[in-house]
Order: sequence, then structure tokens, then C-alpha cells
Amino acid sequence: MNAPARREGPSAAGAPRPLIVTMGDAVGIGPEIIVRAFERGELGDAVVAGDPAVLRRAGAAMTALIDRPADLPAVPPGCLPVLAVPGLDPALAALPWGRVDARAGAAAARCIECAVQWVVQGEGAAIVTAPIHKEALAAAGVPYPGHTEMLQALAGAGAAASSRPAQGRPGPTTGAAPAGPPVRMMLANDELRVVLVTIHVSLRRALQLLDFDAVLGTLVITHDAARAFGLAAPRIAVAGLNPHAGEGGLFGDEEQRFIGPAVQAARQRGIDASGPYAPDTVFMRARRGEFDYVVAMTHDHGLIPVKYLGVEQGVNVTLGLPFVRTSPDHGTAFDIAGRGMADASSLLAALRWARRRVNSGVRPAG
Amino acid sequence: MNAPARREGPSAAGAPRPLIVTMGDAVGIGPEIIVRAFERGELGDAVVAGDPAVLRRAGAAMTALIDRPADLPAVPPGCLPVLAVPGLDPALAALPWGRVDARAGAAAARCIECAVQWVVQGEGAAIVTAPIHKEALAAAGVPYPGHTEMLQALAGAGAAASSRPAQGRPGPTTGAAPAGPPVRMMLANDELRVVLVTIHVSLRRALQLLDFDAVLGTLVITHDAARAFGLAAPRIAVAGLNPHAGEGGLFGDEEQRFIGPAVQAARQRGIDASGPYAPDTVFMRARRGEFDYVVAMTHDHGLIPVKYLGVEQGVNVTLGLPFVRTSPDHGTAFDIAGRGMADASSLLAALRWARRRVNSGVRPAG
Repeated sequence: MNAPARREGPSAAGAPRPLIVTMGDAVGIGPEIIVRAFERGELGDAVVAGDPAVLRRAGAAMTALIDRPADLPAVPPGCLPVLAVPGLDPALAALPWGRVDARAGAAAARCIECAVQWVVQGEGAAIVTAPIHKEALAAAGVPYPGHTEMLQALAGAGAAASSRPAQGRPGPTTGAAPAGPPVRMMLANDELRVVLVTIHVSLRRALQLLDFDAVLGTLVITHDAARAFGLAAPRIAVAGLNPHAGEGGLFGDEEQRFIGPAVQAARQRGIDASGPYAPDTVFMRARRGEFDYVVAMTHDHGLIPVKYLGVEQGVNVTLGLPFVRTSPDHGTAFDIAGRGMADASSLLAALRWARRRVNSGVRPAG
Repeated sequence: MNAPARREGPSAAGAPRPLIVTMGDAVGIGPEIIVRAFERGELGDAVVAGDPAVLRRAGAAMTALIDRPADLPAVPPGCLPVLAVPGLDPALAALPWGRVDARAGAAAARCIECAVQWVVQGEGAAIVTAPIHKEALAAAGVPYPGHTEMLQALAGAGAAASSRPAQGRPGPTTGAAPAGPPVRMMLANDELRVVLVTIHVSLRRALQLLDFDAVLGTLVITHDAARAFGLAAPRIAVAGLNPHAGEGGLFGDEEQRFIGPAVQAARQRGIDASGPYAPDTVFMRARRGEFDYVVAMTHDHGLIPVKYLGVEQGVNVTLGLPFVRTSPDHGTAFDIAGRGMADASSLLAALRWARRRVNSGVRPAG
């Protein structure tokens, strides 16, 4: 697969575009699950945006530092390919495992910025992100609570940058970027695909953020993405917000005020949306095959069922970005970081998911 | 098992105390799943507080009306034993299936009142409730949003009544009763036991109701009930309210303000409580055996995982009442009522659960 014409640089002509895996928080389990995936031969055509010393501490026998993704073919066998990320703290590999540290938070953010810029410039095929720690991000002054919000902002900034002359390497800034395209977080495993209207905010704040536009926007993004994934007429169920989906207004009126109307508006656009359904049974119904996707109003309504049977196979997919982005659906697991206990299964699933979409040639809907 | 001494009436001396099954909403699936349990021989030593005509419409070949639970031994084989409930609308069996009706709501409430009174008077061993419809209850002016709240109030009133001279049959009143003992709703299946701090209120209202006392009270009730169920030192996990249990305060402060302190206060009382944990993974951890019970802040945080694998085996148990009460964990299913499609599995599980507790001689902790 050739890189888009707008990409520049002599080493990349005709080379395949690799996936870019971000290292995640340096003191969490991100580095070690990446190394494990590499050791198992499942990193495939991916490069890691990160710090070679951190990856060696996490178990990598040898690393090869490259300046750009297109240099991947030059990496010797047995060497973990690491894409240089400028501006990382030199002491990262000496930080204690499993403790919130602003330097690790800042480094994690820089790896993401770097990955986005290479993908927007056309040298990376997709992004797979290892877990970051939100408190570390906050300690570093990164103005995003999580990957999804950060990628959204960077996609907006990156898309703007890519329309200007080539920018060279990504800079180290973690300042606020302009608002990006509307995106949504999807969590998926083999039996359930859930798209969230609100994510990394308190439940109290989520109640303030939810409205007609947020729900309808989620339905449109979900529909477009599901079609891009290959479903001609995706069946999208909408979970209510309140117990029993409000029980006819007795337990809350959000279903009547805007969730139901948003479902109707989506149907008028030709989207096969239905609901709102009682949150406590709609996921079970989707698992049994009644729906292809479920839209959930809050982070935990959606993630509790996805994770209930185990997080090993869960994948986090950002819908609506101008590039493919997946990640494992677990966190940094500070309690076990550095002990060789972390399970790479979800990262492997995220790699497979991203590779499938890239290979299918499907472009995201956003 | 003999009835307590305070019970009066010549027919009951030495007779076993039956379970009392309430009919539920007359136009929902309650009557037909009761009839199905009877046909399968699994109603056992239970009587149905309800309307014989409704139960015949739901498929019962023959019914035998009795005036009090202790008359059960006189019921001929093959007849479904129906305990007379005064004040039911005579047109109940002519109401259309699956439509909210105030008469069905009022009747459902009267059946519950009747059952409570017989159990409080010592003639019923435990209560198993078929599903009611909350809109029908509200249409009938019943001031409780669900079974749990109604049983709590009736237990308070009933306990007071049982200390007075014998009251005869329960009256038809559905007026507000004095506040009863603190109770909590538990949902259980073979792999998960979840106790809810808030239940049938909007999410917005739940946020207002949650506080230190509500969480600590739930932990105490759960601990006492779990010990009464036979666990010497139940391991109780507390799920947080916000995404990632607040992520150290970034996504909400309820965990820091009162959920965590309530867990600590419970531990100081010798309760093996822990948390608050991220809501999206604590249920998975409990399913794998790490905890015996999970306390959830909201209805759907708790019920989504219990129902995810199917509602057939789920049982709703009220903790803290002065008598045993269980119910199936599904609703009236108006969409399929009267069509012979309803699945009695959850009612059978509720009957088994109640019978086990009664036979073990364990008294509830409340």
C-alpha cells in the first residue's frame, strides 16, 4: 500500500505504511505488553513511538531507533523498532514503576502527538495506543482527560497542519489544540459493540452534557462507522439513561425530552436506530444478536457489560477520526506494572482490529 | 415447622407455613409464569395471593380459593391454591393484556399487602412476588415506585400491627404507610450478588440521595444478610459512582467525599469491605471470585452485569426485611403477556431461593 501523495521523504517511496503503537505511560504496563506482543511475533508491521530505554527496562532485548515510520524496513530482525519521539524526559526509565509521575504523563502525551502527526502526514497507517494514566496526564498539565479527547483535538490540529507545507517532526507541545472532528469512543469484543455518548467526566457532569445533539451525533457517527466497517444497515439500539429507561417518566425525563426524539430524528435520516431501551437488559439483547451496536449514555453503562466477561479481548476504537485508532480496553494497571504479570491479549486484539481495517482499505467515516 | 404463637385460627395448628406468591400485575406475565410453575410441579408448598379468574385466564385448569394460608392442606390435588385477597376489581380478568391499567395496579398492591400481613402474622413463611408495573401502580395512586419500597413501608406498618390484637384479613388500603426498616434490593444469579444503594429513581435524583449514611447503611445490611445467608466473613466490594471511581478526583468527588470514608467506617466495624473500585471492572472481578458481594450506587450499574448473561436465573432479594422476600428479576413484559411465551425460570429460581432460606431456618438480618 502506497503512502498518500502528500507525504514527503526519500526513504518512504513505495514502502508499506506501518501501524504506530504509542508506548503509553512509562511506569504502567504499556511498555511490557508491547514487548510481549513483539516477542510473540504479533507486533508485525508496527513501530513503537516511545523511549528505547523504557522499552528495554520492560524486557526488550534489543531496540532499533528510527527517525520515521518509513525506515521500518531497515530495522534488523529481532530488534524492536522504536520511532524517535523528541522531547522525552531522559530519566523516564529510572522512574519507579506504578507511581503517578508528571514526566511519564508528559512523555505519554508526546508519543501520541508524534503518532498522530506521522499518520496525518501519511507515513503511519493507523494508531494503536497503549494505556495512559489520567492523573499523570493531569499532573503534566495535559488538558485532556484521555486518549479520545486528545486524539480528537490533535486530529483537528493535525489535519490543519497537513494542509500546510510539511512540518517535519512533531514538536513537544502538549498545549490545548483546537476542537477536532466529533468523535466517539467505542468498546468492542467478540459479542458486543458499544458506543458512548459521554466518557471521561463525572456522572454529574455527564447529566449536564447529555442532550439531543449529543445523542443524535453519536447515532450518526455510529451509523457511518458501522457502514464503513462493512454493515449496510447497522441495527443500533439506544440504551436509556435512567432505570427502566425512565419508566414512562416516573424515573426521569431525559428519555422523553431528548433521547427518544434523537432516535426518531436518526430514523428520519434512514438510520436503523431504536429505543431508548432499559439499560439493564439492552446489552443482553445485543449480545444475543438483536442489535449490531448499542449506544450508551454514560461510560459505565457501556463499559460494565463489555468488560464483564473479561477485558482480555476488548478493544477500544475511536469512531469519527480521520484515521484508524484502536487501543486495549484496560488501563495502566500500576499495581502490577514491571512485574511481568501483564496480559497482552487486549493489545493483540487492538493490533488485529487496526490491521484489519487498514488492510480492508476502508476509510473511517468521520 | 409451626407457626409462631401469636398466630391465631383453628385451622392452622401444626400446619406447615406456605410460601405466599403474589400474582403481580394481572395483565402482565406474572399470572402465566405462576401457572407454568404450578403445572411443572414447582410451586410446591406455596399459595398464590391473587384473583382466581385472572389465573384461569392465564391457563390454570382449576383453582381453589382459600381464606388463609393455613388452609392449603385442604386444597385438592391439581387445583392451583389461591389465597383470597379482598377488594380486587371484579373486572380484572377482562382487562386487555399488556396495557397499563389502574385497576391492575391497585390489585397488584392489594395482593402484596395481603401477603405481607399473613407473613407478619406468622401464617406465611416467605413472600415471592410476581412482576408489577410501576406505571400501573402510579395510575392507581400507590405511593411506592416498586416492590422494595412498598415492602419496606408495609413491614414497618405490619410489624406495628402484629404487636396489636389480631387484625383479621388485610384491608384494601394502598395509602402511604409509615417508614419501615432500612432495606436494600439485591440481585443475584449463580455467579454474582449485587446490592443497590439507590434503585427506582432517576439518575439525577440518585446523585442527590447518595451520601455517607446511604453507603454505610448498605454495607451494614449487606454484611448482616450475607452472614445470615451463611458466610462468616463476607467479602464486600464497593463499586464507585464515577468513571474509574473518580480517577483520583478528576471525574467526580463522591468517591473521596463519602464512598471511601463509608468503606473505612464499615471496616472499623469489622466488615470486610473494600473499594471504591472502578465500576467497569469490579463486577468482572466479583464474577471471577474475588468478592462475595458487590455494592453498587445505582440501579443500572448493578443490574447491567447481573442481567448481561440472561435474566432467566436472576433473583431479586430484599435484604433487611423482617421476613424473606424474593422475586424474579424481570418485569411484566407487557409485549408478550397472554401469549404463552413467558419464561418461568426466574420465578422458579426465586421460589427455590426463598424455600432454601426458610428451610435453613435462617432469619433475615434486618
